[in-house]
Amino acid sequence: MTDYMKEIEGGIAAAKGFYAAAHAAGIKYQGRTDMALIYSEAPCVTAGTFTTNVVKAAPVQWDMRIVHGDGAVRAVVINSGIANAATGSEGMAICEKTAEAMSACYGGEKDEVLVASTGVIGMQIDAGRITAGCPVLFEKKDHSAEAATSAAQAIMTTDTHKKEISVEVTLGDGSTFRIGAMTKGSGMIHPNMCTMLGFVTTDAAIDKKLLQKALSAIVEDSFNMISVDGDTSTNDTYVVLANGLAGNKLIDSENEDYARFCGALRYVSIYLAKQMAGDGEGATALFECRVSGAESVPEAKKLAKSVIGSSLCKAAIYGHDSNFGRFLCALGYAGVDFDPEKVDISYESAAGKISIVKNGMGTGYDEEEATKILSEDAVSVLVDMHRGDAEATAWGCDLSYDYVKINADYRS
Amino acid sequence: MTDYMKEIEGGIAAAKGFYAAAHAAGIKYQGRTDMALIYSEAPCVTAGTFTTNVVKAAPVQWDMRIVHGDGAVRAVVINSGIANAATGSEGMAICEKTAEAMSACYGGEKDEVLVASTGVIGMQIDAGRITAGCPVLFEKKDHSAEAATSAAQAIMTTDTHKKEISVEVTLGDGSTFRIGAMTKGSGMIHPNMCTMLGFVTTDAAIDKKLLQKALSAIVEDSFNMISVDGDTSTNDTYVVLANGLAGNKLIDSENEDYARFCGALRYVSIYLAKQMAGDGEGATALFECRVSGAESVPEAKKLAKSVIGSSLCKAAIYGHDSNFGRFLCALGYAGVDFDPEKVDISYESAAGKISIVKNGMGTGYDEEEATKILSEDAVSVLVDMHRGDAEATAWGCDLSYDYVKINADYRS
Repeated sequence: MTDYMKEIEGGIAAAKGFYAAAHAAGIKYQGRTDMALIYSEAPCVTAGTFTTNVVKAAPVQWDMRIVHGDGAVRAVVINSGIANAATGSEGMAICEKTAEAMSACYGGEKDEVLVASTGVIGMQIDAGRITAGCPVLFEKKDHSAEAATSAAQAIMTTDTHKKEISVEVTLGDGSTFRIGAMTKGSGMIHPNMCTMLGFVTTDAAIDKKLLQKALSAIVEDSFNMISVDGDTSTNDTYVVLANGLAGNKLIDSENEDYARFCGALRYVSIYLAKQMAGDGEGATALFECRVSGAESVPEAKKLAKSVIGSSLCKAAIYGHDSNFGRFLCALGYAGVDFDPEKVDISYESAAGKISIVKNGMGTGYDEEEATKILSEDAVSVLVDMHRGDAEATAWGCDLSYDYVKINADYRS
Repeated sequence: MTDYMKEIEGGIAAAKGFYAAAHAAGIKYQGRTDMALIYSEAPCVTAGTFTTNVVKAAPVQWDMRIVHGDGAVRAVVINSGIANAATGSEGMAICEKTAEAMSACYGGEKDEVLVASTGVIGMQIDAGRITAGCPVLFEKKDHSAEAATSAAQAIMTTDTHKKEISVEVTLGDGSTFRIGAMTKGSGMIHPNMCTMLGFVTTDAAIDKKLLQKALSAIVEDSFNMISVDGDTSTNDTYVVLANGLAGNKLIDSENEDYARFCGALRYVSIYLAKQMAGDGEGATALFECRVSGAESVPEAKKLAKSVIGSSLCKAAIYGHDSNFGRFLCALGYAGVDFDPEKVDISYESAAGKISIVKNGMGTGYDEEEATKILSEDAVSVLVDMHRGDAEATAWGCDLSYDYVKINADYRS
């Protein structure tokens, strides 16, 4: 947290002019909410990053066309339970009908409405249920923190808790704007641009190109640095809506105001990315890897991601087992040509810090102490490559019995 | 199996002039054998492929120098329990002392002796125990099938069964040669060039360059097409020793004899690779993916490896759950730019075959039938990309509770 930014209540509806709602539409789940709405009373400029998987869900295709176009956006309709992926032209028609149903509620155009889906791939959504849900959501929409939280809950699938955050930023001239955000995602998480869905609302007035530039850069350091299982989803979506109602001077150059906007968006994005990694399917711990002393940032990222992505490293964290050879091994196949005999490794957590490897070899550390440090619910493996000054951090989770349990029969 | 080749008994000691032995040296395990010897009564030409991990175990470094040099090889000394990786100059000294101890047994040179280790990374091997084991092994060496099997057992770590095979090949002029082989490997298996160790002996007379050429090509289609957990080990080694005692006409050009040698080496290598994949840590099933209709073989390989490497696909196989969206998803992030609406997917096993996806969408198949097919102990997912004529097959295993159990506390 910096001096120009503070956390506030309000989640996805914290920024001026934004509303949220949730509804139990019976898309697939029974006895819980499964549709959410984000609505802005004023038109929004948007920026987005989407899955790089060539199998792109219908809503991803729908949103990419709109976000990368010139038109304004007023609403996002989200459902959980079914991903609307591998659904062909019928799936695209569902997106269109949903957007039509929502835009009809406020007398707008279908191309002002983004849609997003998460859940099982290969099933069709019932068009009647999702379109009937739209006016219900519109009727229930509210600017309250409670409404925001209900939306953050409705978009969850295997997530064990909601993920939302909001901040208020003060600019140089004393004006303020807000950013609210929510995400979901727990499995099929290996964002290259994650099955994550993420939404950010802001009342900041900002130019569309700068908004996209900020988002694209920040995603590289946040969501693209987490992995739960190495599977890049068909539905990954991270979208920012900016409606300009804060009344700040339009951010249209890379000035100090832009720097503060980027700082706040980065804070929000990294917070949510870490929440998602720590809530990975079956996870008992957030597993962070901080690499320093790399020759370049891309190199540092490759190394950090290789460690948090390794099944064997993840299983060692689950077992609180200081099997440091696995960390060395994962660094070794990251695709970086380094001298193993210069590598140092430490562990850090709320229980303390301990040096494990020095110059590529075990330090003869105290196993009991190491186990204690690895037993916390957030554990960091610190790697110093001694090759340069570049750093990067990646976040994942441990690999537990429950990951297997959840995924061996996810559909039932 | 072809008309020129038949399976025979004898394993790693099946070929003329080769001997095997096992010994319980107490390297780390108690109450089991943990050292093995392969010995040839005549000098061998050798070929080898080794891990691409930049963290290379000391024995890998020792062997690479010898195999890529000009000298002949007489023996391989293997231990399980400790990998001799991340062990610095002390680790290299252990390799040298082991080779010295073995070569002293038959009055040869240390550079004629390969060494190989598998087990925990980061621990030192006790020099006294491993060197004391050498003369015991040399004394016990035998040309029998029993001795070969004892060696194949001694090199196991988390493997649940030994992996060995031997074949006899008849050449055009009626002469014959034999190939014997053994491997180990169950976790940290993602060969790019796998913690697999693999050894092949043959009495064929073959030129060293042709031997390496054959081995390098065949590894690409066998060991490099399997994955248990995506972790490329520090110790992966696959070595062929050819002592020429079969009396066949020296294979020194890419003639029909060479083709038969390659056919036999390929058969042996794919057999062992599939054995290793099916015996992946915690595995209950061999999980094969056959991709056809790709534009090129490298493309087909990428797609097949992406499917068998996906944690979510592996968990679905464990659950006998026809969650076909996961297969589509894994194809989608393989790094191949294809049209999802042309993809067909079927399942095949001893219980039958069923079409699951046609043109990128579910076929409305019988779920009960699909579950039955996925419940066998060897399951194939067949993918037709409809882009060209190229094919590839990759092998992995399902992801079970036991994988987590084995790896959460492997060291104890």
